[in-house]
Amino acid sequence: MTATATARAHTNIALVKYWGKADTDLIIPQTGSLSLTLDQFYTDTTVTFDEGLTADDVIVNGERLSAQRATKVHNFLNLVRQQSSRASFARVTSVNHVPTAAGLASSASAFAALAGAASQAAGLTLDRTALSRLARRGSGSATRSIFGGFVEWHAGHDDLSSYGVPLVEKVEWPIAVVALVLDPHHKKISSRQGMQSSVNTSPFYPAWQQIVADDLAAIKPAILAQDFTTVGETLESNAMRMHALTLSAWPPYSYFNGDTLAAMQTVKELRAAGVECYYTLDAGPNLKIFCQNSDIAAITKRFSQQFGGDNVIVAHPGPGIQFLDEA
Amino acid sequence: MTATATARAHTNIALVKYWGKADTDLIIPQTGSLSLTLDQFYTDTTVTFDEGLTADDVIVNGERLSAQRATKVHNFLNLVRQQSSRASFARVTSVNHVPTAAGLASSASAFAALAGAASQAAGLTLDRTALSRLARRGSGSATRSIFGGFVEWHAGHDDLSSYGVPLVEKVEWPIAVVALVLDPHHKKISSRQGMQSSVNTSPFYPAWQQIVADDLAAIKPAILAQDFTTVGETLESNAMRMHALTLSAWPPYSYFNGDTLAAMQTVKELRAAGVECYYTLDAGPNLKIFCQNSDIAAITKRFSQQFGGDNVIVAHPGPGIQFLDEA
Repeated sequence: MTATATARAHTNIALVKYWGKADTDLIIPQTGSLSLTLDQFYTDTTVTFDEGLTADDVIVNGERLSAQRATKVHNFLNLVRQQSSRASFARVTSVNHVPTAAGLASSASAFAALAGAASQAAGLTLDRTALSRLARRGSGSATRSIFGGFVEWHAGHDDLSSYGVPLVEKVEWPIAVVALVLDPHHKKISSRQGMQSSVNTSPFYPAWQQIVADDLAAIKPAILAQDFTTVGETLESNAMRMHALTLSAWPPYSYFNGDTLAAMQTVKELRAAGVECYYTLDAGPNLKIFCQNSDIAAITKRFSQQFGGDNVIVAHPGPGIQFLDEA
Repeated sequence: MTATATARAHTNIALVKYWGKADTDLIIPQTGSLSLTLDQFYTDTTVTFDEGLTADDVIVNGERLSAQRATKVHNFLNLVRQQSSRASFARVTSVNHVPTAAGLASSASAFAALAGAASQAAGLTLDRTALSRLARRGSGSATRSIFGGFVEWHAGHDDLSSYGVPLVEKVEWPIAVVALVLDPHHKKISSRQGMQSSVNTSPFYPAWQQIVADDLAAIKPAILAQDFTTVGETLESNAMRMHALTLSAWPPYSYFNGDTLAAMQTVKELRAAGVECYYTLDAGPNLKIFCQNSDIAAITKRFSQQFGGDNVIVAHPGPGIQFLDEA
């Protein structure tokens, strides 16, 4: 046990979406959700508690954050300090191997890695359930990034009961996710703002809660049975119903752009041509395509023609949190 | 009373949408709806019952339709013949002054004009309620095009109880609709197919019925009070919630294209700049913008820059059905 620790966590793509908080402070979600952790996108974070510091010092991708931009990290470190005998400020050095442009949630891997590194550096001995609960306080989707493979987030009803649970950690199913980079800009409406707008103003929101319950009941046995069609149809349907919650909010908004719509059409054309694949997307325009390994070549070829090869990234199931430096 | 008659009917834009049938044969809708009849877009139709004909002869915009393409008109004429002593075939000559490209429902004006001309040529004496019921059998939105100005379609529960009712026929409110032509192609999924897919597969559909009830309750007094903001917010919200029913159907689909999303963004920017206007759209990508006459110039200028002046059409409240030839 030392005052320093390094952890690596991978991001995840939700197949059944988390869209709405029941408790915005504790980040207790309105519904459960289910994701696949991805191997290509991860964050490495080192935390060192140092009594010589007069404030938390946060460096992300080589850039020192202002106190204001570091607020979320500072608040998160306070949660760790509350549980620990270590009360000093910390130096946090984090490198995101998540292309911001990919529209994948770097906050999932970032807060999962921070939870791991900070708790270990603080001398806490947390099991993975406790780590998942801690990561949840930083970012909802980080709850799932503690684990590898297919992961369910049990919504729960309070801090103790809301955490991730692995469904299939070691995925021996030849499936992949092809991520399309359709817009490298930051999203205009954060997922945090967007989901609460849906909760508060969409008259469809109550039905969403039943949709998630039904989709979880359908997708979990389908994953265990490696039933690709059921998993694919469920994730595409779930994603579009989540996005229906953005159109039906007031004021209405959408994360789609013209390329998003064009890429959805291409997925339909690929399916019609016998290349079975399904899309999902989150709080941004970038489509992610769920497919079988045997179809990766056909899919990447088609989308490289449409959007350029640099904008097509292939990922596979990834591992749970790893501690890189337990010196 | 002669064997020939000519009628003119204008199309309408739904402010509270008709999206789903309870009875697909009689075209009884799941919910009420409310529209504004528009002056710029209309259909002129002449019907002549002629004992010398051996089949119905249908000429639209100078082109004679094949028997297959004339099926809907033929079936509609059969409804008229069932109510009349005139059993012969008819010649139908129809000219649509609705740019197909505008994405406005030419079937609304077409079947309203056909209902008027055919019933009069057949010697029937139908009041406007009966005409509205008859037009409904051809196309749901035609139910409303019998009347001018703001028109409500009472959903009803059978053929007798489902018809249009004028709310404000003679509109003395300086408002306009700016129609954008964003895609001149025919829609891939007809409104008829799309709405039934929503009824049958969207888990949000039950909530849509309450949305329409609430929106009708909000928009009718607002129209009578000329409360532009309430009318505008209600129609934009209602349209986006209708389109949420397309995303949430299975398989999911959308009528949006990239220009649709860009035009929606422009409306938001205009509003932020103090030009208050609101959008709506139907089963196609073309946005229609509800505005006050004092803002027409600013709005058409902005959209002409974005999409070209030829693709921006200004309409005002239009009249109900007119009989042009009662010789």
